[in-house]
Amino acid sequence: MQRYFVDTVLQENEIYTDLNVDTHHIFNVMRMSIGDKIEVVDKNKDVFIVNIIEDTPFKIEVISTLQSVESNIKVSVYTPFLKGDKLDFMLQKSTELGAEHFYFYDADRSVVKLDEKKKQKRKTRFEKIVTEASEQSKRNTIPTIEFLGKLKSIDFTQYDNVFIGYEDVRLQENKKFATALNRTDTHIAIIFGPEGGFTESEVTSHNNFTIVQLGKRILRAETAPLYMLSVIDSFYN
Amino acid sequence: MQRYFVDTVLQENEIYTDLNVDTHHIFNVMRMSIGDKIEVVDKNKDVFIVNIIEDTPFKIEVISTLQSVESNIKVSVYTPFLKGDKLDFMLQKSTELGAEHFYFYDADRSVVKLDEKKKQKRKTRFEKIVTEASEQSKRNTIPTIEFLGKLKSIDFTQYDNVFIGYEDVRLQENKKFATALNRTDTHIAIIFGPEGGFTESEVTSHNNFTIVQLGKRILRAETAPLYMLSVIDSFYN
Repeated sequence: MQRYFVDTVLQENEIYTDLNVDTHHIFNVMRMSIGDKIEVVDKNKDVFIVNIIEDTPFKIEVISTLQSVESNIKVSVYTPFLKGDKLDFMLQKSTELGAEHFYFYDADRSVVKLDEKKKQKRKTRFEKIVTEASEQSKRNTIPTIEFLGKLKSIDFTQYDNVFIGYEDVRLQENKKFATALNRTDTHIAIIFGPEGGFTESEVTSHNNFTIVQLGKRILRAETAPLYMLSVIDSFYN
Repeated sequence: MQRYFVDTVLQENEIYTDLNVDTHHIFNVMRMSIGDKIEVVDKNKDVFIVNIIEDTPFKIEVISTLQSVESNIKVSVYTPFLKGDKLDFMLQKSTELGAEHFYFYDADRSVVKLDEKKKQKRKTRFEKIVTEASEQSKRNTIPTIEFLGKLKSIDFTQYDNVFIGYEDVRLQENKKFATALNRTDTHIAIIFGPEGGFTESEVTSHNNFTIVQLGKRILRAETAPLYMLSVIDSFYN
């Protein structure tokens, strides 16, 4: 069933006429009609099955509540800018895999430099990608997107653990990612580097970073977060 | 260091003049010259650092042997044809994540139908993608690609375990993928469905299929193998 996000709080068995949803998508793209059902995620991140009662003005009745599919752990992804459309792909897949927040940082070896205007344009595009991916993967929340500065200027003290995937330790047995995960953590961050990798000063910039390897092979920059998020999801859920 | 595959058996300290490698890529794309070093994977899947001694005719000296980065477990990926360029992406990422073989099967709900001529063209493109991904991720082997028929006609008896990622069980606690993995297995298969999902007769077509869920969210067809391969790599290595 198609899923839409609204900024209203919904209740079972109530009727709503003033929801801010994409009715063009509902009626023209999905070709729905009166009597069809859709899923709606409300302001509280609860998910409901609703019945379409009228098209103009748009009117629905809330029928039932659905079980949440959100992860037991909150994961913030720290990513540099990458070349081409790799970030579009990474954002879509990482949203499917349960990421909660995306923070873009300025990597020492980043080859992509964006001015403020371009950053705003990117942000709009990125938000569209994570919204669509949230709807498609039936999430209750849409990940947030924020642009930050250099790694060393970022405050990481809010996290139970901060994992940095570092290629240089990929053959070290004692740096395995799965072994470093801790069941009591509730809020973690994962950091991955640009195409050219981290500088050593980035890796050592915070003393609460846990340096981990992501298997023995070399993963592309945009593959590393998918590896980490898959292993995290499988471990915590 | 750039990595190339050859079909000769190499030995340390020996000189070779007859290697079948892409010298255009070495000298024109990578702009290497005499005295530069490259990595070469030989017929036995051993990896060597070699020194370029001459360009025409191409001549190298084997300097040293490198540690293998291959997985402790062999994984065969069974995939339907998918729309657009999703398979290109899936093949690239799955190669980085350690897949050993790719088998394409005709899914009941597959929307992509290819005649023999188109299949051959696809095979050539797919082989190029997995070769490049193997070189980039420093693998010792290149995954193989083969086209098969319907799931029910395929012999799965060679595997220690066959996992089928089935959306319909995604909220069932006792179907978790990580829990189903077994440390004594050495050769496993993972099967994932097309955009429209498996039919029930596919899921029940073999009695050695282990039905598993891949987290609570709905993953796109091309994301499912990446989830499975990441969790497998992290579990077995």
